[in-house]
Amino acid sequence: MARRKKIYEGKAKILYEGPEPGTLVQYFKDDATAFNAEKKAVIEGKGVLNNRLSEFFMTGLSAVGIPTHFIRRLNMREQLIRQVEIIPLEVIVRNIAAGSMAKRLGMEEGTPLPRPIIEFSYKDDKLGDPMVPEEYIIAFGWASQQDLDDIVALALRVNDYMSGVMYGVNIRLVDFKIEIGRVWDGDFQRLVVADEISPDSCRLWDMETGDKLDKDVFRRDLGNLTDAYTEVARRLGVMPSNATHMPKPTLIN
Amino acid sequence: MARRKKIYEGKAKILYEGPEPGTLVQYFKDDATAFNAEKKAVIEGKGVLNNRLSEFFMTGLSAVGIPTHFIRRLNMREQLIRQVEIIPLEVIVRNIAAGSMAKRLGMEEGTPLPRPIIEFSYKDDKLGDPMVPEEYIIAFGWASQQDLDDIVALALRVNDYMSGVMYGVNIRLVDFKIEIGRVWDGDFQRLVVADEISPDSCRLWDMETGDKLDKDVFRRDLGNLTDAYTEVARRLGVMPSNATHMPKPTLIN
Repeated sequence: MARRKKIYEGKAKILYEGPEPGTLVQYFKDDATAFNAEKKAVIEGKGVLNNRLSEFFMTGLSAVGIPTHFIRRLNMREQLIRQVEIIPLEVIVRNIAAGSMAKRLGMEEGTPLPRPIIEFSYKDDKLGDPMVPEEYIIAFGWASQQDLDDIVALALRVNDYMSGVMYGVNIRLVDFKIEIGRVWDGDFQRLVVADEISPDSCRLWDMETGDKLDKDVFRRDLGNLTDAYTEVARRLGVMPSNATHMPKPTLIN
Repeated sequence: MARRKKIYEGKAKILYEGPEPGTLVQYFKDDATAFNAEKKAVIEGKGVLNNRLSEFFMTGLSAVGIPTHFIRRLNMREQLIRQVEIIPLEVIVRNIAAGSMAKRLGMEEGTPLPRPIIEFSYKDDKLGDPMVPEEYIIAFGWASQQDLDDIVALALRVNDYMSGVMYGVNIRLVDFKIEIGRVWDGDFQRLVVADEISPDSCRLWDMETGDKLDKDVFRRDLGNLTDAYTEVARRLGVMPSNATHMPKPTLIN
């Protein structure tokens, strides 16, 4: 492969210059990190699974008219995406108290929330992605009030859709994180779901047993992370090999 | 069983007085009808499957905060529901052109739509449930503009969620019909999803083969209807017997 220009390297993914202007290649690493990278490991096969699963979820979102950065999967570890201007926020949607929310509020993990709750973190590894109120976001110009309204609407749609996907295979979508990117069409801005959607970025609990099928398996040393992600892929019929029933996207745009 | 008061008998279901005020028992018959009841049959086991599947979908909707009339399943053919004031409309959401829309507009079945499209029919068997524009609905007082705005928002949420449920098991949600009911809490009105959600009220196509897994199998003599509905239930892990993994609802209300 010709030497490509690396645009950005994060904890779990690398972005390379894409084959055409306005595109990037997103490479999924096997690296797992937690607690702001204090805990690290290489988990054989994680990148392959997340590449497939993110393809599957983003394709599904497109099919119901939720725009994403995803164009197509290129190979086992790479996908072609649109280059977007990432809004420096982690958009977190919670259906059930878990993780940092449970800790912060002294709630028992697993407590259902009165309604889906959205919160924002400022994306900055050095600062540990601190939680921020909407006031900060607008005051510092990371996003406008209109952007935030649009982001909330988008995040709730993703929550409805992804909750449905998981419910169909007996998994509870407890919470998830997405990132949002801007794409420009002349002066017209459009917000799209960016980054990835995978068991790295969702909390997924088996509905019957409560077993965790997400990155908490790694964070909390609960077993083999690849097994957990493989179980999610298996239930959804998403094969990590090339033999897959992956449906063709119906792009409604 | 003590003799119960029949409140209403429709083509596929019967409503009986419930055990408490404000409740009804919804009984699922095996009767199948199409083309405004010109075509009729008794399909062994259809009622049992639809009772289970409607329970499964309504429970899932509740879990993401979409209110429904469903309280709990009582037995193989009956479920306890809230008594609601049915708005006399069929609310149809379409993702892909099929059925009456394809026919009316001379479109090929299977043509993806530019975005989900909502249409309304006036519920009246004698008239054949005629399609009506929003103007009629408001002018005749079947629903207010505010009701319609709320109904559209609700229907789009159901579409996102149900599209996700089906996508997770490799089925395309082509279109579906819901009915909406009003419940009153003092002077405060709330709209809830009523009637049923089942392969009787949805078009469901296998994503790979395009096989129909819905009432079109009966309408168009494409095979065994019970087999098609059983396949949907099997993929979702919804067992028509009493042994089922049916998740417990997390009611967020």
